[in-house]
Parts: sequence; structure tokens; C-alpha cells
Amino acid sequence: MTSAAHRSEHDLLGHRDVPAEAYWGIHTLRAKGNFAVSGTPISAYPHLIDALAAVKEAAALANEELGLLEPEKAAAIVGACREIRDGKLHEQFVVDVIQGGAGTSTNMNANEVVANRALELLGHARGEYQHLHPNEDVNLGQSTNDVYPTAVKIATVFAVRGLLKAMAVLQDAFAGKAVEFRDVLKMGRTQLQDAVPMTLGQEFSAYAVMIDEDRSRLAEAVELIQEINLGATAIGTGLNAPAGYAESARRHLAEITGLPLVTAANLVEATQDCGAFVQMSGVLKRVAVKLSKSCNDLRLLSSGPRAGLNEINLPPVQAGSSIMPGKVNPVIPEVVNQVAFEVIGNDVTITMAAEAGQLQLNAFEPVILHSLSKSIVHLERACLTLAERCVAGITANEAELRAAVENSIGLVTALNPYIGYEAATGIAKEALASGRGVAELVLEKGLLPAKRLQGLLRPEVLAGSGSPQP
Amino acid sequence: MTSAAHRSEHDLLGHRDVPAEAYWGIHTLRAKGNFAVSGTPISAYPHLIDALAAVKEAAALANEELGLLEPEKAAAIVGACREIRDGKLHEQFVVDVIQGGAGTSTNMNANEVVANRALELLGHARGEYQHLHPNEDVNLGQSTNDVYPTAVKIATVFAVRGLLKAMAVLQDAFAGKAVEFRDVLKMGRTQLQDAVPMTLGQEFSAYAVMIDEDRSRLAEAVELIQEINLGATAIGTGLNAPAGYAESARRHLAEITGLPLVTAANLVEATQDCGAFVQMSGVLKRVAVKLSKSCNDLRLLSSGPRAGLNEINLPPVQAGSSIMPGKVNPVIPEVVNQVAFEVIGNDVTITMAAEAGQLQLNAFEPVILHSLSKSIVHLERACLTLAERCVAGITANEAELRAAVENSIGLVTALNPYIGYEAATGIAKEALASGRGVAELVLEKGLLPAKRLQGLLRPEVLAGSGSPQP
Amino acid sequence: MTSAAHRSEHDLLGHRDVPAEAYWGIHTLRAKGNFAVSGTPISAYPHLIDALAAVKEAAALANEELGLLEPEKAAAIVGACREIRDGKLHEQFVVDVIQGGAGTSTNMNANEVVANRALELLGHARGEYQHLHPNEDVNLGQSTNDVYPTAVKIATVFAVRGLLKAMAVLQDAFAGKAVEFRDVLKMGRTQLQDAVPMTLGQEFSAYAVMIDEDRSRLAEAVELIQEINLGATAIGTGLNAPAGYAESARRHLAEITGLPLVTAANLVEATQDCGAFVQMSGVLKRVAVKLSKSCNDLRLLSSGPRAGLNEINLPPVQAGSSIMPGKVNPVIPEVVNQVAFEVIGNDVTITMAAEAGQLQLNAFEPVILHSLSKSIVHLERACLTLAERCVAGITANEAELRAAVENSIGLVTALNPYIGYEAATGIAKEALASGRGVAELVLEKGLLPAKRLQGLLRPEVLAGSGSPQP
Amino acid sequence: MTSAAHRSEHDLLGHRDVPAEAYWGIHTLRAKGNFAVSGTPISAYPHLIDALAAVKEAAALANEELGLLEPEKAAAIVGACREIRDGKLHEQFVVDVIQGGAGTSTNMNANEVVANRALELLGHARGEYQHLHPNEDVNLGQSTNDVYPTAVKIATVFAVRGLLKAMAVLQDAFAGKAVEFRDVLKMGRTQLQDAVPMTLGQEFSAYAVMIDEDRSRLAEAVELIQEINLGATAIGTGLNAPAGYAESARRHLAEITGLPLVTAANLVEATQDCGAFVQMSGVLKRVAVKLSKSCNDLRLLSSGPRAGLNEINLPPVQAGSSIMPGKVNPVIPEVVNQVAFEVIGNDVTITMAAEAGQLQLNAFEPVILHSLSKSIVHLERACLTLAERCVAGITANEAELRAAVENSIGLVTALNPYIGYEAATGIAKEALASGRGVAELVLEKGLLPAKRLQGLLRPEVLAGSGSPQP
Repeated sequence: MTSAAHRSEHDLLGHRDVPAEAYWGIHTLRAKGNFAVSGTPISAYPHLIDALAAVKEAAALANEELGLLEPEKAAAIVGACREIRDGKLHEQFVVDVIQGGAGTSTNMNANEVVANRALELLGHARGEYQHLHPNEDVNLGQSTNDVYPTAVKIATVFAVRGLLKAMAVLQDAFAGKAVEFRDVLKMGRTQLQDAVPMTLGQEFSAYAVMIDEDRSRLAEAVELIQEINLGATAIGTGLNAPAGYAESARRHLAEITGLPLVTAANLVEATQDCGAFVQMSGVLKRVAVKLSKSCNDLRLLSSGPRAGLNEINLPPVQAGSSIMPGKVNPVIPEVVNQVAFEVIGNDVTITMAAEAGQLQLNAFEPVILHSLSKSIVHLERACLTLAERCVAGITANEAELRAAVENSIGLVTALNPYIGYEAATGIAKEALASGRGVAELVLEKGLLPAKRLQGLLRPEVLAGSGSPQP
Repeated sequence: MTSAAHRSEHDLLGHRDVPAEAYWGIHTLRAKGNFAVSGTPISAYPHLIDALAAVKEAAALANEELGLLEPEKAAAIVGACREIRDGKLHEQFVVDVIQGGAGTSTNMNANEVVANRALELLGHARGEYQHLHPNEDVNLGQSTNDVYPTAVKIATVFAVRGLLKAMAVLQDAFAGKAVEFRDVLKMGRTQLQDAVPMTLGQEFSAYAVMIDEDRSRLAEAVELIQEINLGATAIGTGLNAPAGYAESARRHLAEITGLPLVTAANLVEATQDCGAFVQMSGVLKRVAVKLSKSCNDLRLLSSGPRAGLNEINLPPVQAGSSIMPGKVNPVIPEVVNQVAFEVIGNDVTITMAAEAGQLQLNAFEPVILHSLSKSIVHLERACLTLAERCVAGITANEAELRAAVENSIGLVTALNPYIGYEAATGIAKEALASGRGVAELVLEKGLLPAKRLQGLLRPEVLAGSGSPQP
Repeated sequence: MTSAAHRSEHDLLGHRDVPAEAYWGIHTLRAKGNFAVSGTPISAYPHLIDALAAVKEAAALANEELGLLEPEKAAAIVGACREIRDGKLHEQFVVDVIQGGAGTSTNMNANEVVANRALELLGHARGEYQHLHPNEDVNLGQSTNDVYPTAVKIATVFAVRGLLKAMAVLQDAFAGKAVEFRDVLKMGRTQLQDAVPMTLGQEFSAYAVMIDEDRSRLAEAVELIQEINLGATAIGTGLNAPAGYAESARRHLAEITGLPLVTAANLVEATQDCGAFVQMSGVLKRVAVKLSKSCNDLRLLSSGPRAGLNEINLPPVQAGSSIMPGKVNPVIPEVVNQVAFEVIGNDVTITMAAEAGQLQLNAFEPVILHSLSKSIVHLERACLTLAERCVAGITANEAELRAAVENSIGLVTALNPYIGYEAATGIAKEALASGRGVAELVLEKGLLPAKRLQGLLRPEVLAGSGSPQP
Repeated sequence: MTSAAHRSEHDLLGHRDVPAEAYWGIHTLRAKGNFAVSGTPISAYPHLIDALAAVKEAAALANEELGLLEPEKAAAIVGACREIRDGKLHEQFVVDVIQGGAGTSTNMNANEVVANRALELLGHARGEYQHLHPNEDVNLGQSTNDVYPTAVKIATVFAVRGLLKAMAVLQDAFAGKAVEFRDVLKMGRTQLQDAVPMTLGQEFSAYAVMIDEDRSRLAEAVELIQEINLGATAIGTGLNAPAGYAESARRHLAEITGLPLVTAANLVEATQDCGAFVQMSGVLKRVAVKLSKSCNDLRLLSSGPRAGLNEINLPPVQAGSSIMPGKVNPVIPEVVNQVAFEVIGNDVTITMAAEAGQLQLNAFEPVILHSLSKSIVHLERACLTLAERCVAGITANEAELRAAVENSIGLVTALNPYIGYEAATGIAKEALASGRGVAELVLEKGLLPAKRLQGLLRPEVLAGSGSPQP
């Protein structure tokens, strides 16, 4: 018996009351009960919801085209899907992101929401599945095992686009500083020891180039992820998907999403394989590693203000200490470091989940989706935060930087070709022991005439031309 | 200028408008702006909020005791803290869990909320810090660098207690099945190949014992995490914390929390060291590994129903497929596997964050807190879900299990001591090639008299006594 | 004073005796003393030694071309390098693979061996550096910081070529089985539960395709790693490398190695960046994940022989047990699994090492080289072992496989489009409860005429056309 | 037919020629052929070989005691085992460390070597197994599944003892410096920003205490690993091990090894569980994290010499650069960092291998042994290298350190309790902007009388008493 506030639905296991106002149905209800680990509903990933709606819409159009679905039903399904893609009904996607069942609950949730909204569009009440059925109509010719990975891939493409834009913003911020600091001479360092001179512009240029390269790698990984298995149905044999269905559905889906989607040549392989996700996560990890390295550098270069390197100043964005007055900390790079550590951890999660797939399917794609999505979104926000709240406002302590070069023992390297590695080693040792300058010692020992020496130690010579400004 | 809806506050960087109704202040406001990566506020971890309030309360009592804080101020702070520990004002803890600054924003958020609530209790308005100041009074004798790790440790202890209870529930569920299945004979397997007979009770008993051992390890890790550094202030030298403060604060905090807290012998070390978190995460990873292994087994043993091992039946909790009617999947073990993969990934995140600490502090404790908390809470929910929605309802296919033993070549191992490894190898080879039974072949070859053979192959002999039921 | 068995050499720190017969010198001697962790000398990676010699040869030719090195010296260096590339003197590369100093000791070891052999070719004794100096001549215009990563990249390219060949062998083995088993009908499984029918050929075809895709990814990663920083010298500014040197050295190196090497556009960035190694390791991890998944499947499909799936038989390669006569274990897939776990762990090591780079250099490239080399070589051997000792000899238990299909409840999925998801669910439930067959029940309920039913359940229909054989 | 140089042996798969001089037999021969991935024979881990011999010896004594093995055979086996434990015949342990089969090949290798040596002691020729059989006599009452994990555990205990000693050496080196530097005042830093003063002695004391704590954790982990499953035989049911055998074997093994070994209460659980290895690896990872952090600090504190922090000087152990004369790098800490990264990667490998265990056994223990052994041995060597070649020779630049304190803005924190956080913030801001000193500004503004100020800024007050010297 059902109160007015509920409608009764049934499945393999029996009957259950579903809240009358819900667009989701009994499968979603059971999944909500079964999976309550993370507390994060799939609606937290709007790209995924949009992608699910796009897949359902494409499938309906393909089924209609092949004469398997009545035009009115198809129209209603398409209408419901478009509403979802317009941002409506997202709150009806309530199952937990970490779920058993290889995404079945997510697919069922989508089938039910689309079906119930389509029923309304057809003038029926929610739950009157005799008119349009979540599994028999909305899911027609589909299986979770092709719908879910296809939707995850599309969602990933859209999410990565956001990240790529944020990375471009950060790259521009670094490149801007590279230009601004192009004439600021400083000591370069290897292994934290004074090495040879360079410009601060070259240093920031390297950060910009790193991001540029990572953007290229990410763009390549996006291309690989556009290979889908829609039409594979349960295990890739395409059972219940008629001839022409896979191609028609792909064509519609490509049109809806604007993505150059390709159907995998071998659908059995494509249905069980998580390689594209592992690859994508690997590239995200690469991005994280570089970002973290750059932030480590920013924190180190801005250390001080008095007992540190004190080469650059990060813009203060908040008071740094509850006890130490006036202290300002590099909190923005620090938050980026933490995101990087998270992304690297997520990569291990994704790796384990991918490895754990068995036979014709990987049941663990939900945690792959979850981890991948977090990595992408957090990196996007981290890049924007770093660009806007830190890099854009960095200033240089030019005088100190130049003084360090002039005072440096590393200058002796530039004299190597003229006085030899062995003689240069002697000068370096003596400079270190005595606290005296390299130029002074070279002159004193008559190793080079003063004018020649001066020429060899000119900044533009020292900083070289190895790395053109961006 | 400030509208009525706001009050103006100032800090090192200048003035900002804070919403009039907010208990948090300008430091929290800036942090909200600076850190927007995860979207998860620290209030998502109620144990942490409670622990922060406990620390602030203990510090106020210690400061009062030492004559550093006027009794009325102390009383107001204590009152505010108790409200928070009663679950009030948690929504005022709004800074993002992933934050730069080693937890400073979390500590500042706590200082501000406590101060503003205390001001109200004293009859003042929020923001009238001249009467009671977030940093000068609430944070008196403290630094983020001792408050934050102390609070994280206390929060971890309470969270782990929840996990330990959930693990006990799961252990009981497995142990119950071990008793229920104590006489169900089955084939044991090594490397997925038929080995020698055992009982299904022994198999489930092993799962129960695994959890029991992990509970012991976890309880040991909890003990280690009860060593705190309160009184260390900024870097462990205790600057600004007068003699007696650390001990008094610890005593009050132990009383408030009911935990046997110990102050670290070397506070400089304790302030920079994240070893206890790495250790705790390592033990959580151990728990995850075992849980995942057990779930892998449950999924394997219940594979089928017809083309699998089909030894046990997991209770169906939802329909398994949007395309395959009647299919029921092991969704509960699958969700637990995914939690395990997440915990293992979190361990890498925590490891990297711990390794990245520099000199007198680890700035990355916020992501350690976040990862550790997720691991603990998700494992807790996973254990309960597994116990209640899966293990409790498992049934055995006894007839099939016994038939497999009787049909098994592995029986020949039991005859090893009587006919020798070489003769037994011959029997095994012939049985495999011919499809015939071991006993039949042994008799045919006259290797043992029938009665003797029968005695050697009795179930209670085969399943041995190596592993008593729980 | 030096005995006849030694020669005296000196460096920054003073004099040391070097064994007279050694081609290496004082820098190598000190490094041997300083680094004794792994016990593995760099000669364990012959591709690295060859690559170092190729770099030294290319640099000498470039220096000669630019008039910086006398032709006789250049000829002697080139002669020594060619001997090394012919496999001689490899045992002189004695420094430990895990070394501090960003590879300086490896470069010094190479400089010394080349110099001493070149001295001999010029008619001098080892150690007479006044005639040809390890640093001033062999290392002319170079720094460890460009030589080492360039050599590591070249070595990686050659090592990966070996892996790619081994993967092709494995792919062929799987593809051969896909053809052999193309008509063997069996049950497909998702989430270890019976799903719908397929052929064993399709199953093996998926393994072949997986490897094929991974080979493509690996080939792409190889292309990225052919970007070198030779000419960067210490930090990328090219200090001491004259105009034209970088391009000339690259040209010679490309000729010597036969690789399409490209000089990085920004040498400061290229000198500090380990992105290409992280990417390569990420792809190797992907390969490992897929290999491990395939081996998990092989072990599962061959489980039994009587109490397992028993679908295929792996060729026995050794007795499986010291106690259980006749037992044969899937030891070859098991060893491949372990290599995969190792490669995944190596990826974490490489990630951490890459993240730890600071400012203008990454000091931790030696452990990157070591981990990457192990991953590549072990994967190569694992692929060959798996192909030759396992896959090639796999046989199928055809009768059992077909019986499982005929007995399966999963057949009902094929009837979905004709009787509907709900009716099909009813049939499935009843079949499971009663132990009866799907066809039998469908006929009994009059849901489909016998002839129609027979047509729908034909093997070629069931196994579909989704996945063409390779 | 067998030439004189060979003897013929047979197993389940047929006959093979074994080199006449080999103590190993046909099982080892096959394993050598099957497993050729790492190229590292198990003899690389001498503790493992000794432990295997100890287990075989204990089993023989127990079997003799129970009347299952003739005294002469037992004596011969014991004799052979003692020779092995004396370091003989280790080169006969030739199977690869990374092997399929859960350690069966290692156990078979041990059985064969012991049997053949025992045969000789009995006056027979190698291979005359009719007199004493590797499986029937040496392996009597045993299975790989109890022998191998028991031996791995014993080997781990002995290896960890070496590590603990090396850690003690390192701890002493740090503690020695803590005493030496106890009066050297310096600036403490949090988040790389100047914080408040401390002594260099406190800084080094923290490193010593970290190691001390890690030693305690490691000692605890060793205790857990002393629980063995000898007597479990194949799957823990103890099949073929008579009553009393497990206890007798344990008693003998404890006596032989001197370890307080305990037999697990539940042998089925103990046989499949790798928890103790995961826990041990987790603690090793903790050690690695701390070591790496300490080395990061040492490299940072010694950065310079002129454009870095330049607080301490690491002893030069080799020339740092092939191009930069006079450069000396922190190569010893760098090699330790790399070992740490390796250990952290190994932990992931071990985690995955442990998770992959199935049903009654974990087949992947060989890679666990391999990874764990490398972690332990490399950490041991890293600790000794760090202690002897780096820490022991560290010197401090006292004048510079003291000057940094006197020049510091962080001094203002000490005035907090006297002038308030807000006034102190103002002083800090002004000091930073103007480049002036804190004391100067406080006096100028009349915030404190000169004498009072002087008292508050005394070194012993500033460095506090929070952290007693070791």
C-alpha cells in the first residue's frame, strides 16, 4: 500500500515505495540505500549528467531511425534529455559517486529520470512505465557497459577543456613575468648550490614552457579518450543492438556533443579496457608533478624575508600566523602543492581500479570517474588560483639578485674555456676559503687581462642565449 | 564604510567587510577567497570542529589557571567552546579543507568563531574585539603549529573509534557465518587451483580473524597518535607559552576529551613530524588491503550462478543490469573494493605530503587531515555496509561444495604420507587425464586397503584442526 | 707516493691512488666509495653506456668542427667511444646506479674511461691527462646536466624498442589463439556473473588488441623522449657552449644513433624538466595494468581443474607444489603479475623523484633512470615469457564451454527485444529458482514459438559481430 | 640418456638432465628456465637462505622427534642445513627472486640442495633420491605455503636488525651534532618563512629524535612479524602434519634462530594473510619519509655557498660538477632521498601484491620478499652512508646564523604578550617596509623600556626550553 506521497514501483526483488515527486525510481532508491560511502551524489559532476543525457538522446534518435522506437516516444525522450542538458533535473541524479555495479546505478538513475520526465511530456504521470519504460525504451539497445564508459569519456573531455583553459591562464601569467623579468640577472642553481648566472625571466619562462608542454600532452590524451564503445551493449558483442545502431548512435552523439567521437574497432576489447583512463590520469599526474615543482620553487625563491633567499616576493593574500605578527606565508603555492599530492594519490587509485577489471568488464569504473573528476577539477581551480592570486602579483628584488651574481664563485665557470678546469678549480677553492671574489683572484694571479675578464663576465654573455624568452 | 549587513574588520593587509551575521571574521573571509579548490568546508569533519573547540577550551582554562587570562574572558571562551562541542555553530567553520598555510586558516576560523560567540556571551556584539580578541585572547599562548596538529590528532582518535566499532560489526558478521558454516566441507584453493579440503567455516573464520588483527593494529596506531605538541607554539621552543602552560593545557584537554593525552618529550621534533599520520595511514591501508582481498574472494566464490564457482550466494540488493534480466551483481563487495583503492591512493597523498615538510613545520597537514579523514570515514561506512547488506545474508550451496571435494584430485595429498609423493603424483596425473576419481584409482592399484583409505578421507581428518573455529 | 699497482690522481679534494689498470679515475673512485646502496653498477644498463659513448663522440665531433678540439684529440675520443659502443670497456662503468649528484658520477666515469682509452690510442699512458683531459677535452662544452639526461633518453629509446618487439610477440601469440578459438562458444561474464555468450576467440582477440593499443601509446611516448637538451650545459643557458655547438652536436648524435633527435626550444626548461620520463613511466604503467589484468583472466579461466572455471588449460611448465602431488600452477601469469606490481611501484618512485627537482635541475634523475630501466627490461622479459611459455600452448575445453552456454540463464537477454525486459526478468528468476532452462520456460509459457526461439539462440547470433576477429 | 656431465632427474612433466655438479635438481632447473625476469638469484638475500635452512632443520628435528623420520636421515638433513647456515652452498640457490608459484621454486630449490648435500653426508651420490628424497624427506610435513612465509619472516627480522643498528648510528651522529651545536642560535622557519629563534642544536636534536621514534616503530613491527604459520602445510588445515608437529617445529626453529617465534592461532588465516608484510613496509615507508625530509633540510640549510642559506657546511666528498670548477654538491643526502623514493615505490608494489592474494593463498609473496628486502637493505646502507659521510662532518656557520637572528623581524613574536598581537603586527610591517630592526622600532615608539626589551630578547629565552637537548 502506498500513501499519496509515494508511488509504488517494482523490480526483480519486489515492490518499494518511491517518493511521488521523485523523477528517479525504484532502482535509484535501492542504490541510494546500498551505497552511502562518500555522500557525494553524481550530480556533483555536471559534465557527467550532461553526458548521460547526450547518450540517451543519441540512442533514442538512433532507435527511432532504425524503426525500433515510436517517434512520439523518441521525441519525448529527446525532450527530457535536452532539459537535462540545459541544466534542469540535475538534482534528481542522486546515487553516490562511489557505487558497486560498474555504473549500473548511474545508468538506471538516468533511465528513470529521463523516462519519468518523458512520461510527463507525453501527458502521463511519473511511474506509468507501461507508456514508456526506463529499461525497455530509454535504455533500448544499450547496456550500462557501453552507456557508462561512453558518458564518462565525454564528461572527461569537457572537464579537461576547462583545465586546459585554466592552464593557459597560468601559462600566460608565467610568460608575462618572464617578459617583465627578462633583464633581471640572478644566480642559477643546481642541487641548491650556486651554479652559473641566468635571468629571472629565463626562470619564469621555463615555468611557462612546462605548462605549454603539458597542455600539449593533455590535448593528446583527450583525443585518445574520444574513442567510445556505444553499441557494444553488455560485453561488446552488440547483442540486442541491431546492425547500424552503433554507427547511428555515434553519429548522433557526435552531433549533440560536437566531439569527433570514434567507435572502437573491437568492442569486446573496448568494453573491458580502462587504458584511456589510466593514460589520462598519468598525464594529469605529470601536470601535477610540474605544478608542484614550480610551486616548490616559488616558495623557495620567496623564502625569507631576511633569513631566506628573498629573490622574489609573492603577493600577500592573508595574514600568515595566529602567533607571529607580520608573518606572511606562501599559502597559494602551498595549496597547489596539496592538490598535486592529491592528484598523484588519485592516480594510484585509478591504477588499482583499472588493474582490478576482470574478464569482459571493469566493475570499478565509478571510482575511476570519481578520482579522475576530482583530479581534473581540482587542478583547474589550482591553476586559476595560482595564476590570479599569486603569479600575477610577483615582484623581484633586483638589487639583491644582481649582487648575488657579482659576489658569486660560480662566475669562474665562464672562465673555464680560457683558464682551464684545473686552474678554475683552484680559483674557486681559494675564493671559498678566503671569502674573496673570483675576478679579483683571477687578476691577482695574472690569469687573464682585466679587460678580457670584464668582457667575459658581461651579464648578456653569462645568461647566454640557450633559452629565448617566450 | 560598511552597510548594516556588514561589519568592518582589519588585519595585516587592511580592512574588509564581514557579513554581520557571521561568527567568523576577516581571516576566515580572506581564506574563503583564497582557497576554493575542494568546495568541502572543514565542517564536513565534525570531529575536527569538536577537537578545535576542546583545544581552545583547554588553553583558556590553562591560561586562566596561570593568571594570564581574566576569569570572565576564560568563562566566555569556555562557554563558546562547549556550545560548539554540543554541535552548535559548526556551520560557521567554512574554510576549505584543502588550504595553504599549515592549518592557519582553520585555527583562525576557530579563534574568530569562539571569540565572537564569547563576545555575545559577555554581552558584546560580534566584532568588538577590544573586549575579547581572537588572537590575543582565544589564541593566547598558542600557535596554529601546535593547535592544529593537536586537534587533528584528537579528531583522528574519535574517527578511528567509529571505524573500530564498524570493523567489530563486520568481524561479528564473518564470525557468525564461520559458526554457521562450520560443517560445510569444500575444496580449498591455492593459486586458484584445487588444493585440499577445508570447511567453509574455516574460510569465513579467516576473514573474521583478519579483521580482528587489523583492529589490534589500529588500536596501537591510535595510542601513538595521542602524543600531542600543545605548548610548542610556533616551532616547538614554546615561545610565549609560560612555564606550566603546556602541562596545564594538556591536563585540561585530557579531561575534556577523556583521552590519555601525552605531551611529546621533544616539542621541536613533534611540531615538524608527521610520522604518526603516516603510520596511521599505513595501518588504514593495511585494513583496506585485507578488506579488498576478502571482497575479491566473496565475489569469486559467488561467481555464476551457472558458469562460475557458485559456492556461496550473496543476498541480492538491487537488480544488476539494465539490459540483462535477472542478473544480480556483487555490488556491495564491489563498492568496498573501490573504497579500498581510494584508501590506498590516499596513503600515497599522505606520504607525499609528509615527505614535503620543511625545517620546523609541515605546511601540508591540511591535505593529510583531509585524506586521513576520508579514509577513516569511508572505511567505516564500507565495513558497516558489507556487514549488514552482504555478509549477514550469505548462504552456502552445500551439496555442490561437498560434491567438489569428493570429485577432487586434491584428495591425493592426504595419501602422501602413506603412498609417497611420487606414487601420489602418478595417481594425480592419471586422474586428471582419465577423469576418474582418486580413491577409485588407489584401490585399483592396490596402494591402500579400502577401509584404510576410507578412514584417511574422512572430512574431519581432511579439514584438519589447524584452524579452530572462532 | 704510489705503488706500481696504482697511479696517483688529484681533484678538488686532494690526491688518491687509482688502480693502475683502471680506465676510470679519481672521480669514479670517490663515487664508488660514496655510493654503495644498490650494488648495481651502471654497466647493468648497456644501452646507457652506449648512449654515453654516443654523446661523447658527438660532442667531440662538434668541438672539432668548431675548431675547439684538435683533430687528433677528437679522433682519439671518437675511437674510444666507438670501442665502447662496440661493447668494449663496459665493465669500466662501475659507479652505482643509485647515486647522488644528478648523474655527475656517471658522466665523470664516462669522461675518465673515454679519456684514458683515448690516451692509449694516442700512445700515452692512462692518467697522463696533460695530453688529453677528462673534463677539459672529453667533457668540452658539456655538463652533466645536458649529457646525462640526453644519454638517459637515448638509452630509453633503445630499451623501449626491445619492449615493443616483445609486446609484438605477445600480441601475435594472443592473436593466434584468437583465430584458433574463433568458433569456440562460451559465456561472457561481467562482474564475475554470467552475462551473455561470446566466443573464446573474441576473448583472446581483446587481449591482442589491448597490447596493440599499448604499443601505439608507447611508440608515441618514445617520440616525446627524443627531445634532448645537449648544448644546455649547466643550467640551459649554454654557458661555455659556443654558437653552433648545440646544433652540430645534435646532428652528429642523430647520425650516430640513427634517431630523429630534436633540440628543445627552451633549454632552461628542458634541463630541469623530467616530464618526458614521467610520461614514459605512466605509459609503462598502463602496459603493466593491462598485462596484469590479462594474466588475472588467464589464471581465472584456467582455475580448477575440477573446482574452478576450467575453461582453458595453460601449458604446465613445472610441478606446482612441494606437498600436493599433480598440482600445476599458473606460474607464468603469476610472474607477469608481479612484474606489473613492480612497474606500478616504480612509477611512484619516478613520480616522487620528478616532483623533487628544484630550480634549474633535478638531482634525482639517477633513480629515475634506474626505475625506468627496470620497468622496461622486466616488462620485455615478462612479455616474452608469457608469449612463449604460456599463451602459445593454451588449449580450450570446448565441450564444457559450450555446455555452459546452453545451460545459461544469460540467454534470456537475447530475448529481451522480443518478450520485454520485465517478462524476461520473470523467466530469469524462475530459471534460477527451479534450476530449469531458459528455452524450456519460454516455450512452456508460450512467449515465443519454438522455431523463432531456436533462431534467436543460434551461436553466431549470440556472439554477435561487435568484435571482428583480428 | 645422460652424459657424464649430467644426471637425469624426473618430475611430473618428465625427465631432464641436471648438471652433475649441481646440488639443485630438476624443479630448480625448470624454474631457472621459467623465471628470468630480474636476473637476481635468491642467493642475493643471504638472510633468506639462512632462514630456509633453519626451517628445514627445525622440521627435520620435529619429524625425528615424532618418529616420522629416521634419525640418520634427520642427522644428514640437519648437517646440510648447518653448512648452509654457515654460509656454504649459498651459490646453489639460483632461482630468480621474482618467480611465479608463491615461492614453490624457492622451497624446491632448498629441498633439493639440502637433500643432495645430505645424500653426500650419508655417503650417497647427488640425485640418488631413493635414499633421501627432497619432497618426501626434506619437505616432510611441510608445504611451500608454510615454509616460505616462515622463512621470509625470519629473514626479515634479521635484515631489520641490521637496519636498526644503522639507524642507531645515524641517530648518534645527529645527537652528537645536537650537543655540539647546542649554543648556536639561529632563526627557525615555518613554511620557509622566518619564524622565531631556536638553536641549531634543537634542529639536529629533532632529527635524532625522529630516528629514535622510527626505531621504536620498527621494533614493534618486528615483533608482529615473528608470528609464523609453520605446520599449516598447504592451506592452514595442517593436512599431513601430525599432532604436535607444529609446536615441535616452532620450538626447534625458535631455538635455532634465537627468535621468540609464535605459531599463529588461526593457521588458515595466517597462511593467506600478508598483513604483517604490509605493516612492515608501511613502517619502512615512514622511516623513508623522515629520512628524506631530514635530507631535504640538510640540502636546504647547506645551500649556497653565497646565494643560499649557507647555515651549515656538509663535508665535501667528491667534486660536484664536470663543468663548474669548485662546485661541491650535497650528494650524500641526495642519494638518501633517492633511496627513500624507492622505498615508497616498493610500498606500493607490496600493497598491490598483498591485495592480489586470492582465497587460501597469496601467490605473490616473492615480489613482496624482493621489494621488502631491497627497502630494508637500501635503507640500512643509506643510514650508514648518511651518518659517516655526511652528518659526522657537518660544521656550522655560527656568525652568520646569529646575525640572521639579530636582524630578524620574527623577534617581534616574543614581544606579543607584552605589546599585543596588533601592535606587534604594526612593528613587523614597518620593519619589513623600512628594512629597520624590530628592537629599534619598539624603542622608538616607546612600547617597552630598553632594559625590559633586552631581557625579553635574550637567546636563552628566545630558544625556549620546549625541546631539551638529547
